[in-house]
Amino acid sequence: MSVVTIERKVLEKNDELAARNREVFRKHNVFVINIVSSPGSGKTSILERTLEYLKDKLRIAVIEGDVQTDFDAQRVAKFGVPVVQIVTNGGCHLDAKLVQDALNSLDLQGIQLLIIENVGNLVCPANYDLGEHVKVVVASTTEGDDKPLKYPAMFRNASVLLINKIDLLPYVNCKIVELKNNALGINPALKVFETSCTTKQGIPEWCAWMEEEARIRK
Amino acid sequence: MSVVTIERKVLEKNDELAARNREVFRKHNVFVINIVSSPGSGKTSILERTLEYLKDKLRIAVIEGDVQTDFDAQRVAKFGVPVVQIVTNGGCHLDAKLVQDALNSLDLQGIQLLIIENVGNLVCPANYDLGEHVKVVVASTTEGDDKPLKYPAMFRNASVLLINKIDLLPYVNCKIVELKNNALGINPALKVFETSCTTKQGIPEWCAWMEEEARIRK
Repeated sequence: MSVVTIERKVLEKNDELAARNREVFRKHNVFVINIVSSPGSGKTSILERTLEYLKDKLRIAVIEGDVQTDFDAQRVAKFGVPVVQIVTNGGCHLDAKLVQDALNSLDLQGIQLLIIENVGNLVCPANYDLGEHVKVVVASTTEGDDKPLKYPAMFRNASVLLINKIDLLPYVNCKIVELKNNALGINPALKVFETSCTTKQGIPEWCAWMEEEARIRK
Repeated sequence: MSVVTIERKVLEKNDELAARNREVFRKHNVFVINIVSSPGSGKTSILERTLEYLKDKLRIAVIEGDVQTDFDAQRVAKFGVPVVQIVTNGGCHLDAKLVQDALNSLDLQGIQLLIIENVGNLVCPANYDLGEHVKVVVASTTEGDDKPLKYPAMFRNASVLLINKIDLLPYVNCKIVELKNNALGINPALKVFETSCTTKQGIPEWCAWMEEEARIRK
């Protein structure tokens, strides 16, 4: 039995469980996003700015995924929203089963937006459907403009790209036009927002989009 | 048969092949480092600065690992050193077999230092021995100071930590003392260099260390 066979079986099983999660989300009319990126691209900071902006407009819950620690759940809990931490203990991505387990500790009744923050990894989470409606990939300017070409699966499978840390553009070797072109060349349907968690630039536009998506699901 | 069993078998097989690679390296008296980090931490830029500094002092060869593209091999080839590109086609880490295959295209005769640049991923490459002497983890200041705690395996298994992009410290939310303490808390034996590929700060010290390590193997 080859490893490839096992992997296919793992992915098939995952897809089954993701479909079940999706059914749970549909039943509760909750809009679900899965945020993915490299470690340190600013996923948790974006989440903090998003909660700041949206928590009085939408009822939001969060699932945090980390290899170790519950630091991110602690940061999110300060905003008074329900949050569940998944610690993968070395695992390199969330999967549908982990999210299903987390849902046992989360009351979705009345929740309009569920944000899942995946493990920081630009490779492995690309193939694991969690049952979300939208995969959001964060690429920060400090990582350079070639990442969509070097890690194409993640950009192909995402629906939204957040180009984060745009306040650092003057100091880093990253051409934002190149970054966008590289991403759109791989996935022309990507919706792109440029954001900074320091200046808050782009946060209102990104939040307005999520608010609209959450409302059309009600 | 569980996935865990397969993974253990995969790792055992990898360790066998890594031991064979190590024997090849020993035979040629070549010092081998395996550079790992998140995508965009600056591995290839460090490699460029290193080749600039060391190429007239040591005979160096490079193995480049990427999920897609041979951009990094092209960047390295400009320095006139032998370079082999491994494209993993979606694979999230290098393994000993891929390096063994690459060695078929690389003449190690007379080479003193072999630098292997792994796929950008702070999780999966931690467990795959390639036969290298030293694993070097790069953490950039833009990723924040909590990464050693959140991705501990990589920092535990590394011997050297390069804290890169220190020129960006004034603009980012990263306390370098915290970052060091977090890393040394996990692995007190880590040798730490602070580097910037823009100002070249720390590059001479890092290169002097490698030069010394390569020479004592002759």
